[in-house]
Amino acid sequence: MFLDASGSSPMTNRALEAFQAGLADGWADPTRLHSESRRARQLLDGSREAIADALDARPEQVHLTASPHLGLERVIAGVFAARRGRGRIVASAVERDATLHAADYVSGGRLATVPVDRDGHVDIEALGAELADPDVALAAVQHGNHEIGTLQRLDRVHAATSAAAVPLIVDATASIGHVPAPERWDALVANPADWGGPQGIGVVALRPSTRWLPVWPEGDDWAPGGVSVPAALAAAVALQERLEQLDAVGARLGALIDHVRARATDWPGVDVVGDPAERLPHVVTFSCLYVDGEALLTRLDREGIAVGSGSACTTSTLEPSRVLASIGALSHGNVRLGLHPGVGEADIERFLALMPRILGDLRDEAGAPDLG
Amino acid sequence: MFLDASGSSPMTNRALEAFQAGLADGWADPTRLHSESRRARQLLDGSREAIADALDARPEQVHLTASPHLGLERVIAGVFAARRGRGRIVASAVERDATLHAADYVSGGRLATVPVDRDGHVDIEALGAELADPDVALAAVQHGNHEIGTLQRLDRVHAATSAAAVPLIVDATASIGHVPAPERWDALVANPADWGGPQGIGVVALRPSTRWLPVWPEGDDWAPGGVSVPAALAAAVALQERLEQLDAVGARLGALIDHVRARATDWPGVDVVGDPAERLPHVVTFSCLYVDGEALLTRLDREGIAVGSGSACTTSTLEPSRVLASIGALSHGNVRLGLHPGVGEADIERFLALMPRILGDLRDEAGAPDLG
Repeated sequence: MFLDASGSSPMTNRALEAFQAGLADGWADPTRLHSESRRARQLLDGSREAIADALDARPEQVHLTASPHLGLERVIAGVFAARRGRGRIVASAVERDATLHAADYVSGGRLATVPVDRDGHVDIEALGAELADPDVALAAVQHGNHEIGTLQRLDRVHAATSAAAVPLIVDATASIGHVPAPERWDALVANPADWGGPQGIGVVALRPSTRWLPVWPEGDDWAPGGVSVPAALAAAVALQERLEQLDAVGARLGALIDHVRARATDWPGVDVVGDPAERLPHVVTFSCLYVDGEALLTRLDREGIAVGSGSACTTSTLEPSRVLASIGALSHGNVRLGLHPGVGEADIERFLALMPRILGDLRDEAGAPDLG
Repeated sequence: MFLDASGSSPMTNRALEAFQAGLADGWADPTRLHSESRRARQLLDGSREAIADALDARPEQVHLTASPHLGLERVIAGVFAARRGRGRIVASAVERDATLHAADYVSGGRLATVPVDRDGHVDIEALGAELADPDVALAAVQHGNHEIGTLQRLDRVHAATSAAAVPLIVDATASIGHVPAPERWDALVANPADWGGPQGIGVVALRPSTRWLPVWPEGDDWAPGGVSVPAALAAAVALQERLEQLDAVGARLGALIDHVRARATDWPGVDVVGDPAERLPHVVTFSCLYVDGEALLTRLDREGIAVGSGSACTTSTLEPSRVLASIGALSHGNVRLGLHPGVGEADIERFLALMPRILGDLRDEAGAPDLG
C-alpha cells in the first residue's frame, strides 16, 4: 500500500510502454547525423512538444534537464546571471531546499525569504515590500507545496512581481499532473516522476520574454551530455495520460483526502495542516504530538503501508520540517500522505483504522501523557 | 547497419531486462524510509558496488552522475576546489571538449594543453615540464581517444603526475567496456552508454587519497536530485556482460578494424589515423582528401550505413576536428567507425566495397583532381 506518491510513484503501463519503445528506438545519440540519431531526435523533439503543449509554453522554450533539482538550480543561476547588476533574490519561506540553496549560493547570501500564513500562503504585502528594492534580480514562489499541499495564489504573486518587473520562477514540481498547470509565471520547473513518469529527468519552461544566461561554458546549457530519450518519451506520455484524467482523478483523490482530514482532526493531539480547500488534491500532512516521526513511519511500514515523513525531500536524517515550522505547526512526528491514482477507498480505510491504535501504542511506549 | 558505436549503441537484451526490472522494483525515491525506498536503495547500492568492482575502486568512492559530461565537470571543479591556492590545469590537447571547457572555466583560463605526437600520444617530456610549475592544481589525460582510438600510456603519465604530487583525472569514457580498465589514475570518469548501457547516467571514481570539494551547496553533491535507479542497474549489468566477453569481443572487433585499416590505406587520398597497435579495438577514423564529411555521411546513411563524423561529440555543425588537427592530420572529410559487438564481417565487407565508389562519386561531383 503505497501512500507516499509525492515526487515518485509507480509508472503507469502506458508510461512503461513508452519507455520501452524509447529504449528500442531512441537509444542513439540525438546529436549525430545518421538515421538512428534522427529517429532519437524526433522522439526527443516530439516529447518536448507534447510537454510544452501541456504547459502552454513554446517547444523551443522548454528544456529538459537531468533532474528537477538541476532544473531549479540552472534556471535560478541563469536568470540571476541575465539580470546583471541586480544582486538580491526573494523567495517564499516554504520553497524547496533546492531552490533556497541555489538562491542563497548564486546571490552570495543575499536571499530574503517572505513569510507565509498558517495555511502556507505567502504574505503578498511582505512580498511587495521586498520587491520594492530595485536590486531584486528574481523571485521564486512555488505553485503547490510538496509537504502541506497548499496552492499559492499565483495570480496575486505574479501581479506583484510583474508590477516590479521582476521575473517570477515558479516551482511546479509538486503540482503539475495533479491540478491544471499554472498560467502566471516567467519560468517554470516541473517533475515528471511526480506525474507517473520516470526518474532522471526534469522540465524547465521559460516565457519568450524571460532572459537567461548559461553559467557554464557548455554545448547544451540545460543538460550537458544530453538527456535520456526514453525518459523524455515516457515523461510526455505519462503527462498526457494524467491530463486526460485530471478532473476525475483529482475529484476522487480530493474526496479521499477530505475524508482523511476530517477523521484525523478528531484524533487527539493531531494537527492537520495546509489549506483545506486551495490545495493539491492528493496530499495531506498531519503532525502528532508526543510521537517520534521515524517510529511512526517504521510501524506503518511494518503494516505494509508506505507514507512520507512530511519533512524535507532529503530525509536521510529526519530533521524537523522547515515548512511546518514556517506555518507555526508542530514540526516533529509528522506524516504525509500522497495518493497516486491507483489508491482506493479500502486502502484509506485501512490506514484510518490503524492510525489511532499506532499513535496510542507509540505514546504509551514513550510514556507520554494521556491525550484522551 | 550501425557502425557508430562510440558513446551510444543499442542496449543488449540483458541490459534491457535489467532496466525493466529496475522500472518495476526501483521506481521509488531511494532516500526515503519505507520498504519501497529501501528496495530502490538496495538496487542502487548493488549497482554501484558492481561498477566499483569492475573499476577496482571502493564502492563508497564511486559516484553516479546524470551524465558522463556532468561527471567530468564536477570532478574537475571539485578536485580544483580542493587544491586551494593552486590555479593552473594541465590537459592533453586531445581531451574532450567537456574536459577542456570545464578546465578552462574553473581555472579562469589558466589551462595549458600539452601536445601529442602523430599517433595522438601525449608528449611526456612536455607534460613533465608543465607539471614542474608548483601552481598546477590537476592534470587531465584521457585513457582512449574517442575519435582516433589511441590509448594513452597512462603508466608514464601517472608516474609524471605522481612525481609532481598532482592529481590525475582520467577520462575513460571511450575505453571502459572495450579494453581492461586503466589502473593508474586519481580520479576516473566512465560512460555506461559506451559499454551497452543506457543514456542519462555517468560514473566517477575517486581514489581514497584524492581530495574533492563540492562547488554547489547540495545534499547530493554528484547527482542533485538523485539518479535513475533503473539506469544504474542496467549500467552495472551491461558492464558485467561486456567484461565477461572483453577478450573475445576485443580480439574479433580488433581484427575487423585491422582489416579496415589495411584496406583504407590503399584508397587514394585517404589518411588512416591513430596508433595502429596501442588503440581501442573497435574504433578507426580516416580522413578523405577533397571530400565533404557531411556529404559522405549522408551518402552512407542513404545506403543504410550509420558512421560517425570523427569530429567532436557535438556535431550539430560539422566543425573541423580539433583532435585531428592536434595530430597533424587532415581535419575535414573524416569518417569514424565504432563497432559494437553485434557487427559482423559481412557488414564490414559491404562498407569496404561501397566506400571507394562513394569517394569517387563525391570527388567527381566536387570537380576534385584525379587521385588515381
